Amino acid sequence: MANSKSSPALKDELDIVIPTIRNLDFLEMWRPFFQPYHLIIVQDGDPSKIINVPEGFDYELYNRNDINKILGPKASCISFKDSACRCFGYMVSKKKYIYTIDDDCFVAKDPTGKEINALEQHIKNLLAPSTPFFFNTLYDPYREGADFVRGYPFSLREGAPTAVSHGLWLNIPDYDAPTQLVKPRERNTRYVDAVMTIPKGTLFPMCGMNLAFDRELIGPAMYFGLMGDGQPIGRYDDMWAGWCTKVICDHLGLGIKTGLPYIWHSKASNPFVNLKKEYKGIYWQEELIPFFQSATLSKDADTVQKCYLELSKQVKAKLGKVDDYFNKLADAMVTWIEAWDELNPSTGVSTGVSNGTAK
Amino acid sequence: MANSKSSPALKDELDIVIPTIRNLDFLEMWRPFFQPYHLIIVQDGDPSKIINVPEGFDYELYNRNDINKILGPKASCISFKDSACRCFGYMVSKKKYIYTIDDDCFVAKDPTGKEINALEQHIKNLLAPSTPFFFNTLYDPYREGADFVRGYPFSLREGAPTAVSHGLWLNIPDYDAPTQLVKPRERNTRYVDAVMTIPKGTLFPMCGMNLAFDRELIGPAMYFGLMGDGQPIGRYDDMWAGWCTKVICDHLGLGIKTGLPYIWHSKASNPFVNLKKEYKGIYWQEELIPFFQSATLSKDADTVQKCYLELSKQVKAKLGKVDDYFNKLADAMVTWIEAWDELNPSTGVSTGVSNGTAK
Repeated sequence: MANSKSSPALKDELDIVIPTIRNLDFLEMWRPFFQPYHLIIVQDGDPSKIINVPEGFDYELYNRNDINKILGPKASCISFKDSACRCFGYMVSKKKYIYTIDDDCFVAKDPTGKEINALEQHIKNLLAPSTPFFFNTLYDPYREGADFVRGYPFSLREGAPTAVSHGLWLNIPDYDAPTQLVKPRERNTRYVDAVMTIPKGTLFPMCGMNLAFDRELIGPAMYFGLMGDGQPIGRYDDMWAGWCTKVICDHLGLGIKTGLPYIWHSKASNPFVNLKKEYKGIYWQEELIPFFQSATLSKDADTVQKCYLELSKQVKAKLGKVDDYFNKLADAMVTWIEAWDELNPSTGVSTGVSNGTAK
Repeated sequence: MANSKSSPALKDELDIVIPTIRNLDFLEMWRPFFQPYHLIIVQDGDPSKIINVPEGFDYELYNRNDINKILGPKASCISFKDSACRCFGYMVSKKKYIYTIDDDCFVAKDPTGKEINALEQHIKNLLAPSTPFFFNTLYDPYREGADFVRGYPFSLREGAPTAVSHGLWLNIPDYDAPTQLVKPRERNTRYVDAVMTIPKGTLFPMCGMNLAFDRELIGPAMYFGLMGDGQPIGRYDDMWAGWCTKVICDHLGLGIKTGLPYIWHSKASNPFVNLKKEYKGIYWQEELIPFFQSATLSKDADTVQKCYLELSKQVKAKLGKVDDYFNKLADAMVTWIEAWDELNPSTGVSTGVSNGTAK
């Protein structure tokens, strides 16, 4: 798999989704790894601005006018002036897999100095099973040179299908505004050579900077919510998607991996601007986490769409009283699924994934 | 903390427990790190055999005759001809912390070639909090150069007290007999530079080869069961202790960390002998895991002892029908607690550790 001398892995089955407001010069550094793949660029902000894409890349680009034209009134569920708009790219893709990356992320090097092909590692992660039902102390048991350790139940060694691969960041860590303010000089220099499954029942903070997933298994849960222009918060788009996704993966018996690959995150966003975007989220989150920790889905919810619609009802019922924003968000979740199904008429059938330990 | 130029960390608060059947020459390699500490050596097998301990170490040694003399009829709960006998050392210790290591474990080197002071890293792990209630993607947030990432709830950043530090192994991985048979040449060469908390609600395979814990917080749960001479299984001693310990830590709001430090595991045990010891465990485990995954403890169980006694009742009620062995084991669990309380009359008071998210 992913032999660099032959055709790149999943070349015709994966789209790279990039939200941006500027010229995509960062792609030059990724050329050896990304050029064989198709790009979906979601232009945020002023649609009259011209975004330059380096020559030789195969891409389609959508600005706000395109989104409005394609989705009509349902375009209201796609955020404006926020990188949350990237989820539009997930919806219009016709491929099985998505990799999404921010335009301030560059190629990192491993401890031997070799440039890391992040996409290749994500593909490895997605194509190998996950182990959400029991923790393996030697990390990913499917990786070369590793296996299940003594005491790992044999009945669980087949693993679960992997729906999401969450990559990490060297240099600028993904900190919230308060931590950025308190530790302005902190850089992540620790290369942890591990991939692991986040256990069932455990929530995690999913960052959208360097993220891959299986659209067929989990795509409709990857909604990045209402952020940015006209909304009371920002910078919780990927978190929201991550919490919804984790609850649904746990319910459907799907796995989420985190760890490798690293990208090089070059630029810390402005912590003062971030604080303004985040501060309501910092309060609300204290109610969101218990909500997602205790959320359960019915047996009838056997597709991602059905799960997501059940979750939207629970958001309205239980989080609407936290702030009216969550009523709007719950409605947008429904609109998102309607739009998804309109653009992807053949999906929404039961994944058929289940096992004895699913909730 | 743990500045190698000054007094070693926790010098008077930690015992090193070593089960053995042979001369302890392996201690020579550990001398720079272990010599300041007190050793408790539990001699397995023939009590008439003389075990040589290299000069200069401060130790006490117990053979089977000593165990019988100290515990009287309660000595029946301590395994014979199995390294599970090590838990006797936990019981007779008067210190707050225990580190236990096998006599075929040597000093490993980190990727820079530096010898790893495993004990120092375990102490760091135990003295810093754990994060069992939410996953941090940059691993241990209390480690230098790391922190909680964006999206980690602020109310959970105080963490939980750490009860257990589980270290790993380079060279010979801790595989079960079937995996040893299938992969006779596999060696663990991957140094993963991470410490992480095993999330609440997730079971893991705890290996007793390179393990540290806080006796005051969790000691009475560290019973290594009935293995070896006269028993139908072996090599599940540490697993049993780990599953009981994890359920109790989850109930009491305590944390368990895994990852660093590595030791160098020199010698694979014989896979044919291991298969004989393990094979019943391989079947039984398929019933044990669901049992421990669904085990809940009552609100009244506010000490480790009370938790452990509740668990012993559940073992009898639910696992007794799997095999009569579990009835014997449940009785031994009670005997273990009685013996523990006899030797440690002042413990068993409520730890007072609890928080909003404890079961």
